Amino acid sequence: MSKIRLALVGLGKIARDQHLPAIAADDRFELVAIVSRNADLEGVAHFTTLADLLASDVAVDAVSLCTPPQPRHPLAHLALAAGKHVMLEKPPGATLSEVEDLRLTAAARGLTLQTTWHSRYAQGVAPARAWLADKAIKAVRIDWREDVRVWHPGQTWIWEAGGLGVFDPGINALSIATAILPRPFFLTGAVLHVPENCQSPIQAELDFVDAAGAPVRAEFDFLQTGPQSWDIAVETDAGVLKLSHGGAKLFIDGELLHEGPDAEYAGLYDAFARLVADAASDVDVSPLRHVADAFLLGRRVVAPAFIE
Amino acid sequence: MSKIRLALVGLGKIARDQHLPAIAADDRFELVAIVSRNADLEGVAHFTTLADLLASDVAVDAVSLCTPPQPRHPLAHLALAAGKHVMLEKPPGATLSEVEDLRLTAAARGLTLQTTWHSRYAQGVAPARAWLADKAIKAVRIDWREDVRVWHPGQTWIWEAGGLGVFDPGINALSIATAILPRPFFLTGAVLHVPENCQSPIQAELDFVDAAGAPVRAEFDFLQTGPQSWDIAVETDAGVLKLSHGGAKLFIDGELLHEGPDAEYAGLYDAFARLVADAASDVDVSPLRHVADAFLLGRRVVAPAFIE
Repeated sequence: MSKIRLALVGLGKIARDQHLPAIAADDRFELVAIVSRNADLEGVAHFTTLADLLASDVAVDAVSLCTPPQPRHPLAHLALAAGKHVMLEKPPGATLSEVEDLRLTAAARGLTLQTTWHSRYAQGVAPARAWLADKAIKAVRIDWREDVRVWHPGQTWIWEAGGLGVFDPGINALSIATAILPRPFFLTGAVLHVPENCQSPIQAELDFVDAAGAPVRAEFDFLQTGPQSWDIAVETDAGVLKLSHGGAKLFIDGELLHEGPDAEYAGLYDAFARLVADAASDVDVSPLRHVADAFLLGRRVVAPAFIE
Repeated sequence: MSKIRLALVGLGKIARDQHLPAIAADDRFELVAIVSRNADLEGVAHFTTLADLLASDVAVDAVSLCTPPQPRHPLAHLALAAGKHVMLEKPPGATLSEVEDLRLTAAARGLTLQTTWHSRYAQGVAPARAWLADKAIKAVRIDWREDVRVWHPGQTWIWEAGGLGVFDPGINALSIATAILPRPFFLTGAVLHVPENCQSPIQAELDFVDAAGAPVRAEFDFLQTGPQSWDIAVETDAGVLKLSHGGAKLFIDGELLHEGPDAEYAGLYDAFARLVADAASDVDVSPLRHVADAFLLGRRVVAPAFIE
């Protein structure tokens, strides 16, 4: 089978740290172009805009969009209209409505569209899903606590309207929870703590209930100093499952059952190559839909100003 | 064909003003039960809870849910689990995630689920959709301005988290716009004016763009005194279409093309009867999805306290 000729749009930190190594390590892909206003990559054709690339004689089968979510929909729409398969970094869009439009557009044209949730490819996630599949869930507890000053230095966009605030990491927790729990869950109440000088929450407490009535509680915190937590604990009739380190380690009743090296983006590109080969799509907005539900239903509380 | 034996859940103002007359006027329905904690209706079996009705010997084919949206999902899920068709008043839920669950549940059981948007059955809407179908849209302008003190006296829930504020009427405008415009549209920015003593916006300005790049501007206002406006104007290559009075009157270039008596809920129940006969569903969350997008993406501005 011939290689998938791939263009990478956006060459920021996530593209360099994760996408480029994953693409280089997967021989089903050939990186044929970089689209970036400012940056370029030695040995790869460079274009300032996606329109320039599509108007060029560089042949492209698929486009991976690593730009920030705000201007992603016009780019994705342009790529699909030109007959290209599309991979979307998380979150898949600035709004749910635009992702639904992309889903319909890709389906109508028989193209692959992939909404990516990299945390779902953390080492413990697939075994956690398999273990939970036949268990009775009693309660779920999600703790996602990190120090924004350490992990997001200078990222002022995160505090603006649409920037998601603490939901930027929190959506990773939701992407894991929606992947491992055997039943869907729904928000019943939320409190969003918004600094008086910001638009987006710095802390959030979310109460969900699953389809069988089990409580799912999530606490997201951007002000955690000292030990950081990216943990999901699921109390079941057969013991307590715990995913820690963002899904990398899986414990059952305190015993380490599974861990492994980070291969999240290798997993994403493996899935994308399979989708393209099968002419299939994977469009799952459930993590972003939970975030939108939290903004829709959540009670806002004014928090002290955030000064980096 | 035998009649659809219908139970009405919730017997508030909207049920008495709209649902009961529409059901009485449609001979495909037989009202067999009322579920309401406090209210009852002479000559119709009464139950305090839906569970009581479902455990009784009153045979029911379908349930129409007119309760407030917050506790609607458990009721709808209970009805579907008992094999009943379900009609949902607008908005169809407190969150998007729970409506998606109902959609999947109804589909798995071969039951009818209908998300109702009554404004779509206003007299001018169907002819507006037909007229716009082959026109090039240049710009859309939505003005939805009403006096909350006149139309929602004492409805304090509207100001609480999840109460939607000015989006409670505004979602009607969005339900019409999503029905008549030939292309989907997506939010690019929004400003939400939230009174300092409330959780929900009292005014909102929304900027959308449609799939071909045409601007769609919506202004919702709860503080309009004097003349009230529920208008949608669509500038096209063949003239300006205007829907006024909440969709009841249709004008082309200022000339009245269509008006008629209010028959919104007759239209809803007609559609529900057809869906049940065809074993089909109509689950469209697009108006609520736009509202969730506005809460997700919108910039909040503090407005003066609202004192009724």
